[in-house]
Amino acid sequence: MSKARAVPEPVTKLVEAFSRLPGVGPKSASRLTYFLLRAPDEVSLKLADALRDLKTQTRYCSSCYNITVEDPCPICADPRRDHHLIAVVEEPLDVLAIERTGSYEGLYHVLHGAISPVNGIGPDDLRIRELVRRIEKGEALEIIVATNPGLEGDATAMYIQRELNNKGVKITRLARGLPVGGDIEYVDAVTLSRALQGRSEL
Amino acid sequence: MSKARAVPEPVTKLVEAFSRLPGVGPKSASRLTYFLLRAPDEVSLKLADALRDLKTQTRYCSSCYNITVEDPCPICADPRRDHHLIAVVEEPLDVLAIERTGSYEGLYHVLHGAISPVNGIGPDDLRIRELVRRIEKGEALEIIVATNPGLEGDATAMYIQRELNNKGVKITRLARGLPVGGDIEYVDAVTLSRALQGRSEL
Repeated sequence: MSKARAVPEPVTKLVEAFSRLPGVGPKSASRLTYFLLRAPDEVSLKLADALRDLKTQTRYCSSCYNITVEDPCPICADPRRDHHLIAVVEEPLDVLAIERTGSYEGLYHVLHGAISPVNGIGPDDLRIRELVRRIEKGEALEIIVATNPGLEGDATAMYIQRELNNKGVKITRLARGLPVGGDIEYVDAVTLSRALQGRSEL
Repeated sequence: MSKARAVPEPVTKLVEAFSRLPGVGPKSASRLTYFLLRAPDEVSLKLADALRDLKTQTRYCSSCYNITVEDPCPICADPRRDHHLIAVVEEPLDVLAIERTGSYEGLYHVLHGAISPVNGIGPDDLRIRELVRRIEKGEALEIIVATNPGLEGDATAMYIQRELNNKGVKITRLARGLPVGGDIEYVDAVTLSRALQGRSEL
């Protein structure tokens, strides 16, 4: 009569694996699992393949640290883009958000997080040292610090400003058209586009 | 500057695969994908393995059509359970919900859906013929129709009642303690337990 007897192991294993994803509770994990049990095999197998390929076929661009298949990534390798301009963002999804505006022609630098003492994330856990080295190579003229408008994003921006202070680059920040406490990837393209245009010097 | 250039193919493929799951929109699919990009490889690979195993290691019990690794399933194979009593449910998750009450000792029969003309699901799409054949074998004395309390569940119950009318089995239904329009798998164990005890003859 125990619960375990009614649920075969492959089912509980998939429920557990789904439960480890953010925003997926045990109920949704069961739902997804039982959906897949009834769906054509192809749905599960495509998802399984995509999960493997994500890990085996992608890497970080050695220049901007965005996710990429080829190194350098297509953005860094594109001669038509402005290589003197670098937008520093927290996450790869922020790159997407800025690309969607269609009003940015420069390159990126993905930090993979923000400074957060509460979560034990310091500057050394981010790609800040790599950013400094990239600036020291001398090609960049302007750095747009496009971290999220909030405590952690602001702390990260201030840290970056201090680190790049004497490197001879102009440091700007996205205009405060962004709602404070918000998240860059959810901002609509028009607002984000305005924030790019109205960027202010740090 | 197009969106495609900023997102490598393995990423878009996984976003698409996640988007095919129920309740997962494009935004959540991106979120999950970028979470996995940063999470240890093991999280993705365990999920990928679990997805494969779900399809390769499970099947339907040839007696009750619940999901199982071995055929017959552990419930059908258990001599301590009451083989004269069969609860007919729509989904494997409903078996779990009834098992959780701890107040049911009989067997199950999983229909894998309910009659729904709107969705083009007729009696032949469910395991009703298999249920009739199972009853004709003669071991069952009582059938508890435990379909969801709603239009489709009621239609299914009525159809089953007609099909089993002259087969010499008692046909009962879960007591209407269940909230109409609800879903069996979300009912709390006490309510479901009462509904089992107060079941009425069809």
